[in-house]
Amino acid sequence: MAISAPEVHRAVVEHLVRQAVYSRLGKLLPRVASAPNPLVVNISARHCHLTPEAVETLFGTGHQLQVHKWLYQEGQFAAKETVTLIGPRSRVISNLRILGPCRTLNQVELAYTDAIALGFDIPLRLSGNIKGTPGGMLMGPNGFFEMQEGVIRALRHVHMSPADAEFYSVKNGDSMKLGIGGDCGIVLDKMLCRVDKSFKLEVHIDTDEGNACNLQPDTPCELVK
Amino acid sequence: MAISAPEVHRAVVEHLVRQAVYSRLGKLLPRVASAPNPLVVNISARHCHLTPEAVETLFGTGHQLQVHKWLYQEGQFAAKETVTLIGPRSRVISNLRILGPCRTLNQVELAYTDAIALGFDIPLRLSGNIKGTPGGMLMGPNGFFEMQEGVIRALRHVHMSPADAEFYSVKNGDSMKLGIGGDCGIVLDKMLCRVDKSFKLEVHIDTDEGNACNLQPDTPCELVK
Repeated sequence: MAISAPEVHRAVVEHLVRQAVYSRLGKLLPRVASAPNPLVVNISARHCHLTPEAVETLFGTGHQLQVHKWLYQEGQFAAKETVTLIGPRSRVISNLRILGPCRTLNQVELAYTDAIALGFDIPLRLSGNIKGTPGGMLMGPNGFFEMQEGVIRALRHVHMSPADAEFYSVKNGDSMKLGIGGDCGIVLDKMLCRVDKSFKLEVHIDTDEGNACNLQPDTPCELVK
Repeated sequence: MAISAPEVHRAVVEHLVRQAVYSRLGKLLPRVASAPNPLVVNISARHCHLTPEAVETLFGTGHQLQVHKWLYQEGQFAAKETVTLIGPRSRVISNLRILGPCRTLNQVELAYTDAIALGFDIPLRLSGNIKGTPGGMLMGPNGFFEMQEGVIRALRHVHMSPADAEFYSVKNGDSMKLGIGGDCGIVLDKMLCRVDKSFKLEVHIDTDEGNACNLQPDTPCELVK
């Protein structure tokens, strides 16, 4: 009988090893090792969040989203299902990934490069704050679903637990900076802190931000107040 | 008889007005007004540079590029002509703009978002330094032209005259930082200085960088050593 290993994120393992090495050497822990949790920086490609009603309209009555891949935040997943987004210039984005579980509102998150290609003029918004934003038409195998609003560029943000917030001396709603190294390094200002005890320490940036600095798994990143 | 006004860039006019206002008020010039030239930051969308031979293969014997729009750097222009770039995943980018005048090498400059969409794995290179970079197939109305190499992401850089370089205390080949403000501000590290007496002060960034920070004509920018 095969026993599958528990799924532990590579960053967590690296962080634990780093802490153990410094501890064994009897050395003072540098800032990155003394943090309660490893800093994970992930690029969110364009995606959408949907209500159960929208999922049924697009995929059929009673349809439930299926898990394609679990994400780093507990309980969040990329669904097997994707939709087509139809923009105002008659251009489309196919295979727009749905993230689950379902929410109480419909929201499409695009990078500006996506929005310009599609012909959308979209605002920068905190996820969930979609009042007055442009809508759009979604197409699924069972039909169309028209969003009256909800197409946004999501504000860059960092999820953190209260222990992480204490370590960085920040509170929910504060802004931080993320320094990203490498040959085309950048510093991202105005990184919003979202603190909740259910959150794991993770920065979410979009594809424009990730590609501007060519973020790779081994690119050094530093979160600073 | 209509006399057309000389074409002066808006940034130059603003700079002159700023200098005049401070001078009239008898106030000390702040750093931005005391600079010899205004700082112009432009986003270069994906484009290509071609040899006269490539232009003839793509557009027909004897074909010469026609000016669509003059660029900020003296003598440089966006041509009326565009080509189609065919990527390794059978995806294409249509309407890839050619910049003129012709050069002694063929080079396609893409943002990483473009390259990922097309299936290219491209390196970050200084323009002109294309040895060992991937090639690609171009299609024009008169035929195909295969580039053996030359598809790159161009290193972010700033063109400057010797007077600008003196003001910023830098020399050709040095690195600077560009701070870009606004709601999703960033700092771009490793901005290469290219100094030549024919250059006007202008930063060139690509669409990933420009869209990461939503650069608009009125976004405040600061170039620092």
